[in-house]
Amino acid sequence: MQKDFELLASDQYSKARRGRLKTAHGMIDTPAFMPVGTQGSVKGVSPRELRELNAQIILGNTYHLFVRPGLDVIKHFGGLHNFMSWDGPILTDSGGFQIFSLAKLRKIADEGVEFQNHIDGARAFISPEVAMEIQAALGSDIAMVLDECVPYPCEYDYAARSAEMTTRWAKRCKRWKQENTQRSTPNAQRRTEEETVSQLSTINSQLLFGIVQGGTFQDLRRASAQAIVELDFDGYAIGGVSVGEPEEEMMRAVESAEPSVPADKPRYAMGLGTPPQLLEMVARGMDMFDCVLPTRLARNGTAFTSTGTLNLKNSEFALDKRPIEENCACPACREFTRGYIRHLIKAEEILGLRLITLHNLHSYLNLMNRARSEIERGTFDQFRKAFVAEYRTRDAVPIE
Amino acid sequence: MQKDFELLASDQYSKARRGRLKTAHGMIDTPAFMPVGTQGSVKGVSPRELRELNAQIILGNTYHLFVRPGLDVIKHFGGLHNFMSWDGPILTDSGGFQIFSLAKLRKIADEGVEFQNHIDGARAFISPEVAMEIQAALGSDIAMVLDECVPYPCEYDYAARSAEMTTRWAKRCKRWKQENTQRSTPNAQRRTEEETVSQLSTINSQLLFGIVQGGTFQDLRRASAQAIVELDFDGYAIGGVSVGEPEEEMMRAVESAEPSVPADKPRYAMGLGTPPQLLEMVARGMDMFDCVLPTRLARNGTAFTSTGTLNLKNSEFALDKRPIEENCACPACREFTRGYIRHLIKAEEILGLRLITLHNLHSYLNLMNRARSEIERGTFDQFRKAFVAEYRTRDAVPIE
Repeated sequence: MQKDFELLASDQYSKARRGRLKTAHGMIDTPAFMPVGTQGSVKGVSPRELRELNAQIILGNTYHLFVRPGLDVIKHFGGLHNFMSWDGPILTDSGGFQIFSLAKLRKIADEGVEFQNHIDGARAFISPEVAMEIQAALGSDIAMVLDECVPYPCEYDYAARSAEMTTRWAKRCKRWKQENTQRSTPNAQRRTEEETVSQLSTINSQLLFGIVQGGTFQDLRRASAQAIVELDFDGYAIGGVSVGEPEEEMMRAVESAEPSVPADKPRYAMGLGTPPQLLEMVARGMDMFDCVLPTRLARNGTAFTSTGTLNLKNSEFALDKRPIEENCACPACREFTRGYIRHLIKAEEILGLRLITLHNLHSYLNLMNRARSEIERGTFDQFRKAFVAEYRTRDAVPIE
Repeated sequence: MQKDFELLASDQYSKARRGRLKTAHGMIDTPAFMPVGTQGSVKGVSPRELRELNAQIILGNTYHLFVRPGLDVIKHFGGLHNFMSWDGPILTDSGGFQIFSLAKLRKIADEGVEFQNHIDGARAFISPEVAMEIQAALGSDIAMVLDECVPYPCEYDYAARSAEMTTRWAKRCKRWKQENTQRSTPNAQRRTEEETVSQLSTINSQLLFGIVQGGTFQDLRRASAQAIVELDFDGYAIGGVSVGEPEEEMMRAVESAEPSVPADKPRYAMGLGTPPQLLEMVARGMDMFDCVLPTRLARNGTAFTSTGTLNLKNSEFALDKRPIEENCACPACREFTRGYIRHLIKAEEILGLRLITLHNLHSYLNLMNRARSEIERGTFDQFRKAFVAEYRTRDAVPIE
């Protein structure tokens, strides 16, 4: 059988890898950044613009889409790709992270999680099996197992019990997939009328990633990684990072898990981070990333450049005729000045956040592009060190 | 001397005209719709998208740009075209309308208007000469004289005195232009260092339109039109319409002024209206229009189609797989369903208002395109009657 993930090059001075992941909707070059399309739209950006930015994969948030517009609507439109008119790869999360951070009245038990959504307070229940059903209906190319993401700080005992539950949930997700893959064979007994051919073929071709938890405890991270890897997934994610812990803790969590994860599978560091953090994660063997910073901070006037952030609301930019970043090939820098974009942001014109969003996404995607070529050329580690040393966060901006 | 405005065809059953207006930044085919770029941006839309929509001219609001970012900033960037990266024609209003509708503590005298702006309350003074100076600095292709736009309802005596003042102001605008055009000759005495060559050439090539006022009083409209036409402008606008008066009053105001306006100059009906109103105005000899409805109502979920408006927030569209309008060539209709756009609007995703805005602007621009070809083919009056008869405003939406 042809493998989904191919390693093309490895850095000899770090754990950085250059790879390629095959999905039902196309190839993904790794290290890869995935723009976040929370509610069926990468905020402020059209699918055409994403294609022009050379985004190879986007992330969809299962929880948000489950709450609104709801699964029936997305099924009616034939899945998330059709609904949002994006024909490239999509990774969906399991919904767990948002249930734990947004929903109310959660009741977590081994069976699953009961919660009230944050929009209209309607009650719902998600189990590992339900999370898989939902992601099959969304039709994503990569599905994630349901996990519990513990907060920071977190007691050792809670983190240990939670990681064990996450493993049991991962096992149930895997079993669900095995059982439902069989449904799509010609003699399947359990096929119902509701299931379309496309949903069944989705389950077959959908990759499933396991998630390593364990909080900031190295032994728990190691144990979680071993237990999850034993279940044999198509890829492995490090979850429960970038939840408020110091950066060293975040790095250590990844370093603790990484040696237990097989080299021939893609690794996904969830929900992070700044450009230097992404390069540090690449150096620690991570291949895939998603982060709301480029889109979220854009709405606040913050632009990412290769030497750090700029807050374009600042008066120093009022008469600045330069683009956000010199020699940047993004649609904002090709045509517009800092002074104009500052005016738009101050005047609360939507075009302002659109332009910064395009620049920021380009900046993140381009950073991964650069990382890939530096790995191929054997110069990644030098590049990373120079980039991190030069990068400055100006005007720390509070995250919503 | 070659004329700026050329009449290519006239409808034999109505006063509709098909023309072409030459400006410093390109030709405008009339009847023409001008998308409104209030604060140096057509809300939600990029210049590239405007070009793709075949918008031939946009409108800039002098008052808004004067208040923010301010003239110094726009001068620094070499005028509004450069500032906003739009190289097509721009018409600027005089700022009068917004001073009368938005600013506080107005003191109107023959000399000019003193006011406090609505953003930071700073005091400012605009006279006919200042309005001309500002528009020269903005570098628009078409400037408007300063006028007073009286509210509806308005006493006869106030409307009469106000229209006379508007005429005196128009005379001063005209004189300012004559005096300042001479400034650009090689032997000019009054050229100051501040004035760039581009500003001076702007004054030379900038067209200046007079504005007819007179409220809802037919004799005042006639008298105002005659007085303004006597001053000899490059084009004539009907102002003070669509300010809350009944539709018949609006039509009558235009009908009263139109016979006094020379046929060989472009006529601009300011600040209106719905698609049927635009066609009725074309039938009454009007050539140019600007209106915030396509962009403003889009933000509320309202889409314009050739058979009327749709409010895409309505639940009836949740599962609707059709585009906003069948056979529409706009970027929203080519790729997205009503159901998806409804989801975006309900979820307050910016892409939703972007898509409806693109559709609505396309709808208005396309209506003018259609009107032009119907006039050429001699079938405009039939077309107008059929369009108006079929058009329905569904779900009346309150205007902000």
